[in-house]
Formats: sequence, C-alpha cells, structure tokens
Amino acid sequence: MIYFDNSATTKPKKEVLDTFYKVAENYFGNPSSVHHLGLQAENLLSQARNQIATLLKTDEQEIIFTSGGTEGNNFIIKGVAEKYRNRGHHMITTMIEHPSVLNTCIQLENNGFDVTYLPVDETGRVRVEDVKRALRKDTILVSIMHVNNEIGSVQPIAKIGELLKNHPKTLFHVDHVQGVTKVPLDFHESNVDFASISSHKFHGLKGTGAIYIRKGLKLAPLLAGGGQERGFRSGTENLAGIVAMAKALRLGMLDYEAKIDTMMDVRDFLINELQLIEGVTMNTPKQNTSPHIINFSVQGFKAEVLVHELEQHGLYVSTTSACSSRTNEPSRTILAMGLGEERATTSIRISLSFDNTMEEAKQAVAIIKQSIKNLKPVMRG
Amino acid sequence: MIYFDNSATTKPKKEVLDTFYKVAENYFGNPSSVHHLGLQAENLLSQARNQIATLLKTDEQEIIFTSGGTEGNNFIIKGVAEKYRNRGHHMITTMIEHPSVLNTCIQLENNGFDVTYLPVDETGRVRVEDVKRALRKDTILVSIMHVNNEIGSVQPIAKIGELLKNHPKTLFHVDHVQGVTKVPLDFHESNVDFASISSHKFHGLKGTGAIYIRKGLKLAPLLAGGGQERGFRSGTENLAGIVAMAKALRLGMLDYEAKIDTMMDVRDFLINELQLIEGVTMNTPKQNTSPHIINFSVQGFKAEVLVHELEQHGLYVSTTSACSSRTNEPSRTILAMGLGEERATTSIRISLSFDNTMEEAKQAVAIIKQSIKNLKPVMRG
Ligand SMILES: Cc1ncc(COP(=O)(O)O)c(C=O)c1O
Ligand SMILES: Cc1ncc(COP(=O)(O)O)c(C=O)c1O
Repeated sequence: MIYFDNSATTKPKKEVLDTFYKVAENYFGNPSSVHHLGLQAENLLSQARNQIATLLKTDEQEIIFTSGGTEGNNFIIKGVAEKYRNRGHHMITTMIEHPSVLNTCIQLENNGFDVTYLPVDETGRVRVEDVKRALRKDTILVSIMHVNNEIGSVQPIAKIGELLKNHPKTLFHVDHVQGVTKVPLDFHESNVDFASISSHKFHGLKGTGAIYIRKGLKLAPLLAGGGQERGFRSGTENLAGIVAMAKALRLGMLDYEAKIDTMMDVRDFLINELQLIEGVTMNTPKQNTSPHIINFSVQGFKAEVLVHELEQHGLYVSTTSACSSRTNEPSRTILAMGLGEERATTSIRISLSFDNTMEEAKQAVAIIKQSIKNLKPVMRG
Repeated sequence: MIYFDNSATTKPKKEVLDTFYKVAENYFGNPSSVHHLGLQAENLLSQARNQIATLLKTDEQEIIFTSGGTEGNNFIIKGVAEKYRNRGHHMITTMIEHPSVLNTCIQLENNGFDVTYLPVDETGRVRVEDVKRALRKDTILVSIMHVNNEIGSVQPIAKIGELLKNHPKTLFHVDHVQGVTKVPLDFHESNVDFASISSHKFHGLKGTGAIYIRKGLKLAPLLAGGGQERGFRSGTENLAGIVAMAKALRLGMLDYEAKIDTMMDVRDFLINELQLIEGVTMNTPKQNTSPHIINFSVQGFKAEVLVHELEQHGLYVSTTSACSSRTNEPSRTILAMGLGEERATTSIRISLSFDNTMEEAKQAVAIIKQSIKNLKPVMRG
C-alpha cells in the first residue's frame, strides 16, 4: 500500500499511540481533582503544554487545547465575533478556506455579520493588496489559512501580518492545520493573533488539537463550563490525547529537520514525472507551495473514477479535500483560481508524509500511468 | 488505593483501551475519504453509532458524536438558542446544573436571552410545579440534569417530560452525563428532545461523548465545517474514541445488570456507617437518589483538609464536584438545597464505580473514622 492521502489524515506513529495508551492507563485522574491523582494529571498536562508552546515558539499561556482543527477554527472565529462585536461586524477571509472556516463565516453572516471572501490569483494565493483594500473601520478579524489543503499554495501570512500592524483593532487568525510541521510559521514574528492546529494531520490522534491565542487577547468561550484551560475551553481534558500530541509534534519537527529535503525531492520528482503524462496538468503552483501537496488534473477523467482505479493498484490518493470528496463537488480552490469546471472536477490530490519514499513515488507514477491507460477504453466506451 | 472519585472520572477499562489502540492503529483512514480506507472507517463509525443507538433505545439517526459532556451541553443549549431564537428568548434551568449548563446559560444571558434558574427542595430536587409555573409563551428550552453530580439527587425527568407534552414549542434537554449506565432513562418515553453523555464517566476515554437529538429536530451547529455527522457536528471523527465509547457503554450496561444490587448495597452500607460517625450529616437524600453518589458533611472540617488526609491513607474522594474543587467554592447544590454555608464547605463526595466492593467500603469507613480522629487535635489546635 502506498498511502498518499496524508492531508486527509495521517497514520498515528507507534510511539505516539503507545504514549496515549500509557497515559490513559496510568494517569486517568481528572486534572481538576484536588487529590494526588488529579495533581499528577495536572502536572502532565502542564508539561505537554510547555513542550508544545516551546515547539511552536510561543508562551505556554498562549496554548489552549481543543478537539481538533474544526473546533479551533470555529472557536476562534465565533469567539472573536462574540467578544468583539461592539467593535464591528465585518470580517475578511478568502474563497479557498477549509469548510470549518468558510461555513463558520456563513453561519456568522446569518447572525448579522458581514464577511468579505477574497479571491485568489491563478497560483492560488490571496493578494496582500486585496486584503488591504477590503479592510474597513469595522473589520474585527482577518482569517486566512497558511497552507491550502487542496492544492498546497502557501499564503503570504508574514506580509498580511505586517499590513495588519497598522490596524491594531483588526485581529489576525491563521488556520495552520496543513502547515504545521511542514511549512514553518512564527506566529509572533508574523504578527498572528490566533492560529489552529490538529494532531491527526501530523501523526497524532484524531480528536485533539490546539490553538494559539496571543497573550493578553480575549475570546468568548465556545465551550463554557468548569473553567478548564483558564476559562477559554471548558471540559475534562483529553490528557492522553494531549500528551500524545506533544510527542507527535516533537517527532514531526524532528522529521522536518531530517527529511524535509527528501520530501521536496519526492514532490519535485512527482511533479516532473506526472507532467509528462498526456492529459495531465498541474494545479499546484510552481512557487510558494507546500512540500507535501501535489494537485493535478487528468483531462477527461472524473476524479472519483481515477481514485478508485488507483486504489485497485494499492495507491491511495484523494479527490480535492477529504471533506468535500464524498459530495463529489468540484474543487472550490481550483474554481477560485479561475482554472475552470473541467480542471476542478478532474483534480487529484497527492499528499505526502515524511515517511513516504522516492521508491513509492516511482511506483505511484507507474500506477498512475497504467491506470490512465486501463481506463481509457472505458472512458471512450 | 481505593478510588471513590468516579463522578470526576473513571479508570478506562482495559478492553476499552485495547479497542482504542487497535482501531487507531488499523483503521486510521478518514471516514470522509472516498477510497477503501475511508469506507472501512465509515463502516466502523456507523457500527458504533448503531450499537450506541440500540443501547440507548434510540434510532441511529438520533446519535451525534461529540468531544464530551461539556461540548454536548454547550452544543444543545447554544444550538437551540440560535436555531429557535425567532420563537422566543426564554429558557428554564435549575440552580444545581453542572457548570457546562450553568455557564452556557449565563453566556446566553449576555447575548440577550432570559434564563430562569429554578430552586430545588431540601432533597435537591426541582419541583415539577415550579417548572410549570416558570413556563412562558416564549420559553424555547427547559434544560434539567438527570442525576446531580454533587449529591446524586435524581430529577423528575419523566414528569417534566409529561408536562412539556402540552408545550410543543418548548424543547427539553437532559444532561445525562452522571446518569448513563447508573440510572436508566428512556428518552423517547420521557419525551426528552436532547440529551448528552460523556464517555470518561463510564470507563471510556476522555475527549469523546455523544448527544441524542430527537428525530426531525434541528440544531444550529456549534462546530460548522466539512459536514460530518450529517452537518450537526463537523470535524474529523475521533473514530477510535467512538468505537471505544460504544464498547464502554455496552460493558457499562452489562455491569449495571450484574452489579447494580452490589452498588446499592455498598452505597447503603456507606450511608449507614458514615451516619454513625460523630459530626457527620448526609447531604445525599434518602430517596430519588443515584446508586453511586454519597455526599456528606463533617462538621468543623474543611473539605479540602479532610480529602488530603484521606488520600494519605489511600482513599480518593472529592470535595463537591471536580470542576469547582480547585477553586474551593462551597457546593452550589448544597447551598441551593438550603442547607447553609457550613454544610456546603464541609461536604465530601464519594462516587462509586461498578468495580468498587463492600470490602473497599469497609476499609473506607475505617479510614474516614481514623482521619477525623487524626485531624481533630489539629483542628482544635
Ligand atoms: C486546512 C484545514 N483546516 C482545518 C481542518 C479541520 O481539522 P479537523 O479535521 O481536525 O477538524 C482541516 C482538515 O480537515 C484542514 O485541512
Ligand atoms: C452532570 C455533568 N454534566 C457535564 C459534565 C461535563 O462532562 P465532560 O467532563 O465530559 O466535559 C460533567 C462532568 O464533568 C457532569 O458531571
């Protein structure tokens, strides 16, 4: 099996799962309990927070644990809306955000907010000038993803952060779910106020994530209750999942150091080889792109059909994003790039992990070539 | 070690943890992916949903997975507020709800809702007549817990459900977090519209829970996004946690069948023996009470001090609820029962699991007696 669908989810590392098991078994106390078992749990929690904060170059007070990327994005956007609604009712985002940002914004529109959805250029990037032009006196939030989950384009976060320095009343949220461990981002340096990550995208476990909240900033809680996470996010902490996430993040960053060059070589190889296949066009841009996502269209082949043919040969990839793949919708990102309906319905996404090898890439190319050949008579049929 | 703090959290069962591990390792695919790994995950998810629905005597369409009890309560209450705000802005709850209900209601009050907090009688029960009297034309939700987490009183859910049959525009939410596997509740029979449960309270894993939504009812999503859980709750599903929850619920209900009598014997033994100790008064009522919670006050002893002394002897109990125990607040429930500040600051909660034995209960009574004796000179000091 060649698993090239790592942007949908990754296989948890064995060490990470083992950590989960050990913590869940041996440190099951509720961190809020006053007795020893509670304190032990509380200490582990605080160690994990410290470790994650250090890895993300933030302060431990700036890290709040969540149940994943979707909660993080909803929490930040709705939390800003509720907390800062007296400042204004306008938000800015892009047309290529993940549904957890897009649909949250639509929900807020139904509740009296006004949202500007910025277009992107033909490389899938938002223009900083467009952000500048869209800013209003009542803009309380700009929400822009770091790495796009469909085509891998990397947004100009640092430049947008720079721009927003002159707009101290406008907060800046970055969906870093696809970026973390693959494309470094220094939240402080880039003037980011809020960011979200999700553990299962870097070989951690589903159901755990974290957000970064710049020190001193407030946010209305999405989950009110017992006051855990300094009142930002109530609910009994998933301690085992959190400690496992700290481990996954540490290992993921070590992987980055050791294997980022290989990953980029594999990506470049795939892009070069796939481009030579008749009917294949790259949707992933040449520059400002992540090392792990390669999106291409195969003219005349419905993406679902090709994905199923590829898996017959042991190659697992996806049509657009996992979230919208079930509904067979055309890729929103590719449409927003102005590449047209045909490219948007024939697009295939390969997404790598640090464990994927050049050998797998070579096999994958052969499988893709063969599958296109196999399908051709059917398609013509 | 005698662990008598099972209402704070339970130790996950070995089989449940093993299930988690196996699923996380072998079925790591994203249920939304179109390929085989996705379908496998989707199938497991639907099996787990089916199993949980059957155990709770509901339809599988009525079960939505969450990250725990706090999310469930926030989701239901805020979801009703948003979805049905055109109907009215009034809600009814009680003074003894868990903070995840109480603080959610307070948050809604800050957003223009009007909430009635009903008192309870001296046995910690809300009066059905009080609910009746509080109902208004614009009451969109009644939110009342099944089993109180501090003293164990069981609320008259079936009677309130009966009352609300005559008020079809008022929805009924029950926080069933402390009830499930200990005090049966048939949602359909009791006319309940929404209910929440949390896996770590019945030997499942932290970070997983479920809600019941009566078929046909709508709810604004708390987590908007990729449309998982039929659009009710987006976010990549914590499949391993969910399958583990299904197992924990099944085993918990088997435990109920096999061990509920023992649990009640242990509870009765503890109540009878503790009452004989000088200075001890029961806060848990004699009737309409859960089989697993025993709350008592020891005159003249600050609860925290006694809890710490008890743990020196290997007995783990808690002051009031885990959530508020860190802040050393007096028990809200005991105050609401009109038992006074002294009783509310000296209250100790024992909470049993089906694994606790009569032998442990006997030892616990001895430890409590001895600890009170040990502390007396200090207290007089
Ligand atoms: C860019 C992006 N944001 C957010 C999410 C949502 O994260 P999660 O699946 O943890 O809810 C995903 C993945 O699904 C993503 O790719
Ligand atoms: C009655 C009640 N409701 C809700 C909760 C919250 O559940 P969770 O800890 O899973 O968020 C708890 C426990 O903390 C509880 O006892």
